[in-house]
Amino acid sequence: MLLLSCPDTQGIVAEVSHFIFTYGGNILDSHQHSDGESGTFFMRVEWSLAGFKIPMEKIHTAFEPVALKFDMDFRIHFSSRATRMAIMVSQYDHCLYDLILRNREGETHADIRLVIGNHPQMEEICQAFEIPFYHVPVAKKNKAEAEARQIELLREHEIDLVVLARYMQILSDDFVSTFPNRIINIHHSFLPAFIGAKPYHQAFARGVKIIGATSHYVTADLDQGPIIEQDVTRISHKDSVHNLIMKGRNLEKLVLSRAVKLHLEHRVLAYGNKTVVFD
Amino acid sequence: MLLLSCPDTQGIVAEVSHFIFTYGGNILDSHQHSDGESGTFFMRVEWSLAGFKIPMEKIHTAFEPVALKFDMDFRIHFSSRATRMAIMVSQYDHCLYDLILRNREGETHADIRLVIGNHPQMEEICQAFEIPFYHVPVAKKNKAEAEARQIELLREHEIDLVVLARYMQILSDDFVSTFPNRIINIHHSFLPAFIGAKPYHQAFARGVKIIGATSHYVTADLDQGPIIEQDVTRISHKDSVHNLIMKGRNLEKLVLSRAVKLHLEHRVLAYGNKTVVFD
Amino acid sequence: MLLLSCPDTQGIVAEVSHFIFTYGGNILDSHQHSDGESGTFFMRVEWSLAGFKIPMEKIHTAFEPVALKFDMDFRIHFSSRATRMAIMVSQYDHCLYDLILRNREGETHADIRLVIGNHPQMEEICQAFEIPFYHVPVAKKNKAEAEARQIELLREHEIDLVVLARYMQILSDDFVSTFPNRIINIHHSFLPAFIGAKPYHQAFARGVKIIGATSHYVTADLDQGPIIEQDVTRISHKDSVHNLIMKGRNLEKLVLSRAVKLHLEHRVLAYGNKTVVFD
Amino acid sequence: MLLLSCPDTQGIVAEVSHFIFTYGGNILDSHQHSDGESGTFFMRVEWSLAGFKIPMEKIHTAFEPVALKFDMDFRIHFSSRATRMAIMVSQYDHCLYDLILRNREGETHADIRLVIGNHPQMEEICQAFEIPFYHVPVAKKNKAEAEARQIELLREHEIDLVVLARYMQILSDDFVSTFPNRIINIHHSFLPAFIGAKPYHQAFARGVKIIGATSHYVTADLDQGPIIEQDVTRISHKDSVHNLIMKGRNLEKLVLSRAVKLHLEHRVLAYGNKTVVFD
Repeated sequence: MLLLSCPDTQGIVAEVSHFIFTYGGNILDSHQHSDGESGTFFMRVEWSLAGFKIPMEKIHTAFEPVALKFDMDFRIHFSSRATRMAIMVSQYDHCLYDLILRNREGETHADIRLVIGNHPQMEEICQAFEIPFYHVPVAKKNKAEAEARQIELLREHEIDLVVLARYMQILSDDFVSTFPNRIINIHHSFLPAFIGAKPYHQAFARGVKIIGATSHYVTADLDQGPIIEQDVTRISHKDSVHNLIMKGRNLEKLVLSRAVKLHLEHRVLAYGNKTVVFD
Repeated sequence: MLLLSCPDTQGIVAEVSHFIFTYGGNILDSHQHSDGESGTFFMRVEWSLAGFKIPMEKIHTAFEPVALKFDMDFRIHFSSRATRMAIMVSQYDHCLYDLILRNREGETHADIRLVIGNHPQMEEICQAFEIPFYHVPVAKKNKAEAEARQIELLREHEIDLVVLARYMQILSDDFVSTFPNRIINIHHSFLPAFIGAKPYHQAFARGVKIIGATSHYVTADLDQGPIIEQDVTRISHKDSVHNLIMKGRNLEKLVLSRAVKLHLEHRVLAYGNKTVVFD
Repeated sequence: MLLLSCPDTQGIVAEVSHFIFTYGGNILDSHQHSDGESGTFFMRVEWSLAGFKIPMEKIHTAFEPVALKFDMDFRIHFSSRATRMAIMVSQYDHCLYDLILRNREGETHADIRLVIGNHPQMEEICQAFEIPFYHVPVAKKNKAEAEARQIELLREHEIDLVVLARYMQILSDDFVSTFPNRIINIHHSFLPAFIGAKPYHQAFARGVKIIGATSHYVTADLDQGPIIEQDVTRISHKDSVHNLIMKGRNLEKLVLSRAVKLHLEHRVLAYGNKTVVFD
Repeated sequence: MLLLSCPDTQGIVAEVSHFIFTYGGNILDSHQHSDGESGTFFMRVEWSLAGFKIPMEKIHTAFEPVALKFDMDFRIHFSSRATRMAIMVSQYDHCLYDLILRNREGETHADIRLVIGNHPQMEEICQAFEIPFYHVPVAKKNKAEAEARQIELLREHEIDLVVLARYMQILSDDFVSTFPNRIINIHHSFLPAFIGAKPYHQAFARGVKIIGATSHYVTADLDQGPIIEQDVTRISHKDSVHNLIMKGRNLEKLVLSRAVKLHLEHRVLAYGNKTVVFD
């Protein structure tokens, strides 16, 4: 499938669909969006490779003249090749379990290559599902070293997507820029409300009637990255902070897994601090 | 904008987008769907007529060769021409008010030509908004006559869309077949639960925890037409039937107005007892 | 019905229910909440006056010994006496219409005594529903004067509840303190996200996937008052600012009307910047 | 905590709260409901046993005079004693995992004593969490025998609550009447829509825009038992039956776990085919 963005002009859809048709491809799904503010055009086209006259490894090159003509950024993905995914965790296991179980049940089709924990507790779960676990402790004084080790592990495993499953550490700008728009985080509030630490405590103190969770790409600005997915749940004066945390867990699992699924299906295009989500 | 359905095959998107591009049109929005069961392909394309080289009145004819090639059913709509809409009512005013106010505030762009009531009560509201009101009483013995008068009124006003805003009468098959997929009803339950009369009483008796409303095209089978939109709201043991009716009103208004808006924007394609909704 | 708050201790429920039982009242509904942080106990008891041996006008005095014993703040309301409500508006009519229509249809039971507008446009609507409309223009230099006139009108009509139905002016601390926890505002965002002006523009710029609305009591701190009700709706990259405003209107109407209904049924107890909502 | 139902009359709340107060109990939470149709009064009172002058094992007897006076059905539960729960499964693991994980994380406080499967596949999961697994195959000809074995197992483990976690067999009336209002099932539709087999296929065929799940107590009538909890999720024409099944899994997990939690906290009172849920 093809994901592209370029300056908005006439004839893009015609040219792209003509390219696919000429080589015998059948378009299965197609989405487009035009951002009026920036004058940018976005497109996602999915077509069947059965009978397609260009071999997989040459499609990228074959498409380049079209891309050049419209000044396109583009990526081509094949559904036959699973995205290589890493999960980073601390001491909470609910999102980890959720991601692993959904993938095992076929809801997502990632190749979960490894789990990196800054605490050792999640090793047992990973063993049960036969996923390699690496314990990389992170402390203030060894942070640079620890990140170097993490990046090394991610590179060794040729990781395409890093999922922070309630990983409680802030990544350095260097780490983030190594995987641009390829690190997904779950923040346990309805951003931009309650940025930063202890959002459930903040929500309790403010007396809101609804709490939320937000999944976003990680950028250098904390909790400011492009939002992929959000959801909320109703609370009341009867809910203690402990209850908010319990209710929030459901949200965290749902919102993170939806965001990961959207990314794995190549439905998300990030631009600036926003996303286009073709679902 | 163009709405079409045809047997699914290769090259449809390419041909349609090529047609638009050739005559200088810029595609603003495009949706497609392929129904695997029936092998039917559905498409909605919206393009700008600014600079389009075919005059409005000739576009239909110009597109016919493409339609013929793929055995298409197709319709062409112009956003500059508002849909002529009639509203049929009985004694409840909440959906009537809602449709009129939303249209007045620019949320929808219908040309509301008339209101037909089988009771006289809604006349005052219509006068306040300067919409012609026709009182056509319906009783068992005069039903055929009354429907003949209603159809006559709808034809005189060249009505494109009939909205039943809690109109409490069942239309005859003849009436329904005069406006195929052009009559929208609001049923005050989450269909197919609680088909027929007094759904809130049925919901109360069953002890459900959620109630709903369903907007659908009217067909000869009562409450069986293609569903356009549904929504639900939470209830509890504390809610009396009266409360269900109150809470249900909100749903009825929201669901009916959303369905009408989707239809007015030509986003709904009905096939069999289902719809494709391109939103 | 009785609403009370007091320091939490043993025997409160027993004493209150004993008081009602002794004089022949039948408890219809009873809610309680204990706030662990502040050690405050809240209670709402509704009982039938049929056969109650104390006449209405003496119940307050009769209850005072119980109140004294537990150091209670308490209010007694009678469902037979409708709350006198004022609505303040600017140029948007959707919340005004919604409040009036719901009251007319029996969803709420307020006595809407007057509407005050800082622009003249809403007069016509008020006339149609036979509600007195007062035009009190507000400009920077006459603000104190204008507020004095508004307060005078509210006092003349013995107003219990002031509803700001998208009233676009900030009230002075003096105005606010004249009606403590008796002014309800609708803010068109999911507070505490997007405090202040143009929240839909802020939401669009941030790229959130969900927008909200918040109804709260007005306090001296802008948008910081105790939250009564919130709700949200899903949006996408396809939604322009204009669409957010349209979708937001539904939220504003629903959330404000729910908050007003809860207040009118005496189900809301404010404390600090929070509320207990007994629904 | 005390759960009771009795004919509605005056003085119940006063008497119950007086009983608790007299013996030094502090009421933590109290709910009541009066069903107008049947004239039945329902109440749930939770109080602290710290300083309560009646020892736990004698509270039941001590309360009997009050119960007798008002002709009450009543149950007394102690939060210090966990409910003994059994889970029955077939070949789907998502609800099983969900129930076990939530219990392990402290969201519920059941004592999960055993899992009974009519297929052997879930044994491995149970071993991982150290829960005894019993494989009791069920076929048409051995059904009576198999149920006898199941009931024997449930009795041996003194089971209070049986949860059918997508257990694909219909229980006999005898089995059901052995555990009245103590068997919770999850039906994968928004009841009463799509009763019976393959509800997702039914939903797909009907073209609904929302699917649901329903958790209810099992009675002799299939899918007709008192509903404890329901929830829904939005779908579209793009969703295949496979997608509905995937999306439905989330609902099944959420709705079943919420119903189980409500039951475990003794917040559900069933009467006729309805429930009162004090949450």
